[in-house]
Amino acid sequence: MEKLSEMNLTESVLSQIKTSDPRKEKIFKSFIKHLHDFVRDVEPTQEEWAQAISFLTATGQISDDKRKEFILLSDILGVSILVDAINHRAQEEVTESTVQGPFWRDDADVMELGANIAQGDAFDKGEPTVVSGKVLDPDGKPIAGAIVETWQSDADGFYDLQHEDVDKNLRAVFKTADDGSFWYKTIKPCAYPIPDDGPVGKFLRDMGRHPMRPAHLHFMIKAKGFRTLVTHLFLEGDEYLESDTVFAVKDSLIVPFSASNDENEAASLGFEVPFYKANYDFVLKKEK
Amino acid sequence: MEKLSEMNLTESVLSQIKTSDPRKEKIFKSFIKHLHDFVRDVEPTQEEWAQAISFLTATGQISDDKRKEFILLSDILGVSILVDAINHRAQEEVTESTVQGPFWRDDADVMELGANIAQGDAFDKGEPTVVSGKVLDPDGKPIAGAIVETWQSDADGFYDLQHEDVDKNLRAVFKTADDGSFWYKTIKPCAYPIPDDGPVGKFLRDMGRHPMRPAHLHFMIKAKGFRTLVTHLFLEGDEYLESDTVFAVKDSLIVPFSASNDENEAASLGFEVPFYKANYDFVLKKEK
Ligand SMILES: [Cu+2]
Ligand SMILES: [Fe+3]
Ligand SMILES: [Fe+3]
Repeated sequence: MEKLSEMNLTESVLSQIKTSDPRKEKIFKSFIKHLHDFVRDVEPTQEEWAQAISFLTATGQISDDKRKEFILLSDILGVSILVDAINHRAQEEVTESTVQGPFWRDDADVMELGANIAQGDAFDKGEPTVVSGKVLDPDGKPIAGAIVETWQSDADGFYDLQHEDVDKNLRAVFKTADDGSFWYKTIKPCAYPIPDDGPVGKFLRDMGRHPMRPAHLHFMIKAKGFRTLVTHLFLEGDEYLESDTVFAVKDSLIVPFSASNDENEAASLGFEVPFYKANYDFVLKKEK
Repeated sequence: MEKLSEMNLTESVLSQIKTSDPRKEKIFKSFIKHLHDFVRDVEPTQEEWAQAISFLTATGQISDDKRKEFILLSDILGVSILVDAINHRAQEEVTESTVQGPFWRDDADVMELGANIAQGDAFDKGEPTVVSGKVLDPDGKPIAGAIVETWQSDADGFYDLQHEDVDKNLRAVFKTADDGSFWYKTIKPCAYPIPDDGPVGKFLRDMGRHPMRPAHLHFMIKAKGFRTLVTHLFLEGDEYLESDTVFAVKDSLIVPFSASNDENEAASLGFEVPFYKANYDFVLKKEK
């Protein structure tokens, strides 16, 4: 028997891998190598390693259908945006993607163009806003019938998923009109902390980092023959644009939310003044 | 604002770390670097990364006081034994350590020397065995009053923690006699699969690896003025000694379990023939 040692251990572990799937083999071997290199680099005490195990266990245990703590962890370590970047190289002509985050849910309601996605209290407490735009192909041609899904936080910085007592709110699915356009009413998004009362929040504090994200709207846009686009629109001027705790900001996704005092337009929208307007045209990538 | 890209992202994440604790800084930065390098190396699709997140979440969710799935994960990836090796360098003159594993519990009963740690059924279904030895200092002098804690699986390969209905069994805490000796009755340990009905078991199968561990007894030995020793004794001749799924075998920890047909000795122990005898002297490291 070859004697296992600090030196040959990694090779021994790798040599046990006997899958016939080359992709799995590559992933597993690379993971083990980098993990062992990390351990060799920091030389954790057994107490430190036990703390790491406890952290990972707690991160899984706090997770459920509504709370996705390992997505948060991936987000704050910059891994989600790195995976996103790797999967969206060389697409100058189309809208940039960014992280999906932990607050998407699969049952948003389909609404008519022009609907108000902020129900009840959420609308009353927010600043009324109208969001509009088009979905286009890379040649600038409108895509009719594209599916525009959006979700956002309320004026207190919480998503519906974070409230025990609130049903679906501040999210909807729209279909673009024949000219590729969409529009809806909502409230202005605000900067918010990611949920920081769990293991990931403690980890952020241990790193000396803040938990804030700049104000944004989430979008997932689908159309037949095009690659699905998962992205955000960020509010111009937000103080956290340069230190987003999940590293998701891209210049091309920052848009002005312009204040309007037009009483007639406000009345026609059922708003009071001032209200806000944001407009953005999304360009989808053709599928090969 | 500097534009984040695949290239400068890692630096951006690292530059957010602002802890005044140099040890934390070293650990966090090294972890992020190796994690990003892993992601850059394998270039996961977003679906693959979502699978990784699901795996980690499930590994935490199946964990509880009795089931410690992240310890298993650390064990099968060879990380537990690597951390152990890093923390026990250059100790030729003392007994080698190995992994603690997920089946230790903090409430084992204190028993008198010579007690039988296999209660009820567990004894009847196993092969009777007497384990003996001494606890010594590096000069070979006996350590009186050393605490010898042992735990092991039953004849079906399960620990008490793995049975819903079984209370503490096959574990105990002894105190060495004035001559440093200890002895107790039990059953012969058998090779067993680590719990493989959860995420880690699936991961092992994905890697094309078996879940087996060679037969062993666990020990944790403590004495005032000495470093606590966490180790195993492995059964000589076991078929899994060379492919232990947690990489914990060390030659110096393999001992013969010799069969005896001595009717008189068996009668004095309350055993039937054949029974087994194992003997090992543990040498502890002096604390500085
Ligand atoms: Cu690495
Ligand atoms: Fe968000
Ligand atoms: Fe064991």
